[in-house]
Amino acid sequence: MNEIGRILISCPDRPGIVAAVSKFLFEQGANIVHSDQHTSDPTGGTFFMRVEFQLANIEEKEEKIKALFAPLGDQFNMEWHLSLASKIKRLAIFVSKEEHALLELLWRRRSGDLVADIAMIISNHADLKQLATKEGIPFHTIPVHKDEKEKAEDRQIALMAGKVDLIVLARYMQIVTPRFIKHYPNKIINIHHSFLPAFAGGNPYLQAYERGVKLIGATAHYVTADLDAGPIVEQGIERVSHRYGTDELKRIGQYIERIVLAKAVIWHLEDRILVYGNKTIVFN
Amino acid sequence: MNEIGRILISCPDRPGIVAAVSKFLFEQGANIVHSDQHTSDPTGGTFFMRVEFQLANIEEKEEKIKALFAPLGDQFNMEWHLSLASKIKRLAIFVSKEEHALLELLWRRRSGDLVADIAMIISNHADLKQLATKEGIPFHTIPVHKDEKEKAEDRQIALMAGKVDLIVLARYMQIVTPRFIKHYPNKIINIHHSFLPAFAGGNPYLQAYERGVKLIGATAHYVTADLDAGPIVEQGIERVSHRYGTDELKRIGQYIERIVLAKAVIWHLEDRILVYGNKTIVFN
Amino acid sequence: MNEIGRILISCPDRPGIVAAVSKFLFEQGANIVHSDQHTSDPTGGTFFMRVEFQLANIEEKEEKIKALFAPLGDQFNMEWHLSLASKIKRLAIFVSKEEHALLELLWRRRSGDLVADIAMIISNHADLKQLATKEGIPFHTIPVHKDEKEKAEDRQIALMAGKVDLIVLARYMQIVTPRFIKHYPNKIINIHHSFLPAFAGGNPYLQAYERGVKLIGATAHYVTADLDAGPIVEQGIERVSHRYGTDELKRIGQYIERIVLAKAVIWHLEDRILVYGNKTIVFN
Amino acid sequence: MNEIGRILISCPDRPGIVAAVSKFLFEQGANIVHSDQHTSDPTGGTFFMRVEFQLANIEEKEEKIKALFAPLGDQFNMEWHLSLASKIKRLAIFVSKEEHALLELLWRRRSGDLVADIAMIISNHADLKQLATKEGIPFHTIPVHKDEKEKAEDRQIALMAGKVDLIVLARYMQIVTPRFIKHYPNKIINIHHSFLPAFAGGNPYLQAYERGVKLIGATAHYVTADLDAGPIVEQGIERVSHRYGTDELKRIGQYIERIVLAKAVIWHLEDRILVYGNKTIVFN
Repeated sequence: MNEIGRILISCPDRPGIVAAVSKFLFEQGANIVHSDQHTSDPTGGTFFMRVEFQLANIEEKEEKIKALFAPLGDQFNMEWHLSLASKIKRLAIFVSKEEHALLELLWRRRSGDLVADIAMIISNHADLKQLATKEGIPFHTIPVHKDEKEKAEDRQIALMAGKVDLIVLARYMQIVTPRFIKHYPNKIINIHHSFLPAFAGGNPYLQAYERGVKLIGATAHYVTADLDAGPIVEQGIERVSHRYGTDELKRIGQYIERIVLAKAVIWHLEDRILVYGNKTIVFN
Repeated sequence: MNEIGRILISCPDRPGIVAAVSKFLFEQGANIVHSDQHTSDPTGGTFFMRVEFQLANIEEKEEKIKALFAPLGDQFNMEWHLSLASKIKRLAIFVSKEEHALLELLWRRRSGDLVADIAMIISNHADLKQLATKEGIPFHTIPVHKDEKEKAEDRQIALMAGKVDLIVLARYMQIVTPRFIKHYPNKIINIHHSFLPAFAGGNPYLQAYERGVKLIGATAHYVTADLDAGPIVEQGIERVSHRYGTDELKRIGQYIERIVLAKAVIWHLEDRILVYGNKTIVFN
Repeated sequence: MNEIGRILISCPDRPGIVAAVSKFLFEQGANIVHSDQHTSDPTGGTFFMRVEFQLANIEEKEEKIKALFAPLGDQFNMEWHLSLASKIKRLAIFVSKEEHALLELLWRRRSGDLVADIAMIISNHADLKQLATKEGIPFHTIPVHKDEKEKAEDRQIALMAGKVDLIVLARYMQIVTPRFIKHYPNKIINIHHSFLPAFAGGNPYLQAYERGVKLIGATAHYVTADLDAGPIVEQGIERVSHRYGTDELKRIGQYIERIVLAKAVIWHLEDRILVYGNKTIVFN
Repeated sequence: MNEIGRILISCPDRPGIVAAVSKFLFEQGANIVHSDQHTSDPTGGTFFMRVEFQLANIEEKEEKIKALFAPLGDQFNMEWHLSLASKIKRLAIFVSKEEHALLELLWRRRSGDLVADIAMIISNHADLKQLATKEGIPFHTIPVHKDEKEKAEDRQIALMAGKVDLIVLARYMQIVTPRFIKHYPNKIINIHHSFLPAFAGGNPYLQAYERGVKLIGATAHYVTADLDAGPIVEQGIERVSHRYGTDELKRIGQYIERIVLAKAVIWHLEDRILVYGNKTIVFN
């Protein structure tokens, strides 16, 4: 882990990008461990790349590599980002009253699947405080009143300032404002309990029940100003039948939510996701 | 097959229905092979039942059984339907230019999965005529012009009169009118190439591509006057990624469509489906 | 819950069983909520049935119903079992060092999916003691030495005597002896971390890795004297690729194990499983 | 298609391979469309790579590119193979009496998914002759008698000489000899109707039925001298229950076989598979 670096790149496609990037890394003494690429369109499209490489003493060399890579980035009009696996990302997890999504994240961290520093848990209710405390994670109860949502969000933003790299809405039952989202563009992952775009909005299990679908699902997506319409990161489904009432749909759905959210968060933490317009490229 | 009968029942739930039906069948000398039931709600709900039974010389006894069962049906306010497996159902398959859904149905019939008599294939184009002819199935080309849709439907209805028990829209790219549907209530199965209710309407693969979903699907449903909103019979999905363009989504989707449509048609032919409001009970 | 009863039946198939059982329940004033049946063979096979019914004051009537049902059972040569949903079953969970399977069971109990009284956790190691204690569950460390396995099992059996209805081997890494199994016939559920019968025995993930399979799985089964060969209750799989090493296979496998074991335990608790030779009938 | 080339590479891993290959292609004027790589082990492992590139007039340049790439291949101790998408691969499909696997391959070719020239169909029975003839494909009936298997294989080999790039055993119910296999190393794909390594050998559906598994599967693999033990290319499964007899398992299994075999053949045709020991790397 201590020697692993990752570069994420997007730029206009043209010949020579892979050659230039791989030559650069070779010259720095790095060994490419994984390399993935994608072009949105064979002609005139956007090129996306993720390179994971191994390099001894990468922490010391980080600034130098960035400086040396910059001209290459300019030459190809790249948006690029270098990150080190050793720099553990910091999470804020937002919850409400339901614990299942939070529990899964805690458990995955414990098992080593999800490598992150959970800086804090923020909730509009105190229900899950004990759970957080047991795990030694700071828990902040910030009630959200309809008329004073911005005030609550200001408190949240202040608490997180300089301490958080990714926000996870783990069944946080509040709509966050565009003003809030602007502080964390493509850095807020939400789990929606339906197979989006079906059943956007409230009460998706009731909607699913009434529509009589034979599969229910969950969707992890980046939060944008358009409710439930941000870039989809991952989706999962489970088969259901006429035997299931809304309670059972909800119960089954919770297991899909857990799995789907955990995958999306882990992929983000491992720098596997590039956002492109309203879509994601997931190199997994 | 020659000795198999099936009763489909729906009625207000109350104690004693199963006892009465099973006692009735026992008294006729029938042996219950399968029995499924479902109650929409534990209190005051609707009760659904499907019984498959074996009875020697059932064909001769059919009318007598119906007459004897009628008072029981009245007593419990049942809607009920008795069918004999030996009475092969007759299909009309509607197609347009794409062959994949039709091919699957033909193949399933050939393999013995789908037991039906394909009375005719009707299309607004002549493209698949040769395919039908090879199989010895009557093929009728009935062009559908925007302004004369009802006229075309009249011709279709005339062709099918007295000859068709189930209509399958196997990628028939026309919207059928409520007038047409009234002739075949809950007897028209359509395959929609999306995971309904997501991407109803036209071009679902393009819609799916633009929304950046990670799973695509197909939905078989009974056709009602509301476009793409009829009772869902079956749904299937397949995982996709950013690597897939609309052409590949379409190609993958075709395999889901094939499987999902074939399942729905087979279940209908085996009297496994009960429609309840805008939902289906599928005893499979 | 307090009014729910379940009867599990197996007997030689012949006409009239369903009629007799449903008539009996009707006469007791019970309302059949679910009824499932299966025949192993259309002619001369074994008939299996599960009936779930609602009956006011069932607890008071339990003994009377049993007495009244007995002659019916004799008439049809039934093996039958009546259980009341209100009589919560008692579990002993056997673990070793890995926590994931135990955690899932604890969590499912918490969420209400798994209705059971966890009487005790037994382990050959002390690693998970703290976890059990936090939940208020008695934890017994009983080391198992190769030469004194029977002695250890005697202690286990003594601890459980009269207190346990079902044993769950939640990644208990010891082979239990036929002597032990005799105390709990078809009452011990194990989770094997492969898609049995592939990769029976030890190190299934290593075996899977070396064979280069494209799907890995887990199997929940009843424990019999034949190692890993008892009746299968449930299986699950997940897709893998050449990119996964044994560590990753193991990690992915743990999530399958969790889900599969939890399902099997819940089905047992809900009296949904009938064992028939070396197979199971699962009415779910 | 006419401008697409693909290079498959395996060699000892060391820094600089990706850089060298991508630089080479850039210098030839090629644009990399897809690039995938894998290392069997982070230290001292084998490196695998597949590059798909676009190059104008590639057919004229093929020999020149090979000559220029050879020194690079030597430098890194590569096994490498360049193929042109425009050079359609030639198949021999071996069948016996069952048609489902063959039908799927024919259909996929028709739909454009499977790009190949089906040079001939060889069978030990004449049952599928008409099907082949309708499609205009040469069909050879070569009976295989137990004592004269080698003689039959000699006839097969003679028929295929110089005309066949890949052999597909599409439910060809004969075991081929090591002598035969030597002519087509890693060029024979078989579909086995079980989830290997479970139920290797004959009658897998009966085996599956008797073991009471809850999922059945199919496996496409390269044929080696060890029966059913060659490198696995793809596997699929479907859920089954106690309700299914062996006939139904077989029927369901056929649909898995179709899908799994078609995938494996398509991947081979698109040069997506590298064999490594007894495993495959599939870049899909």
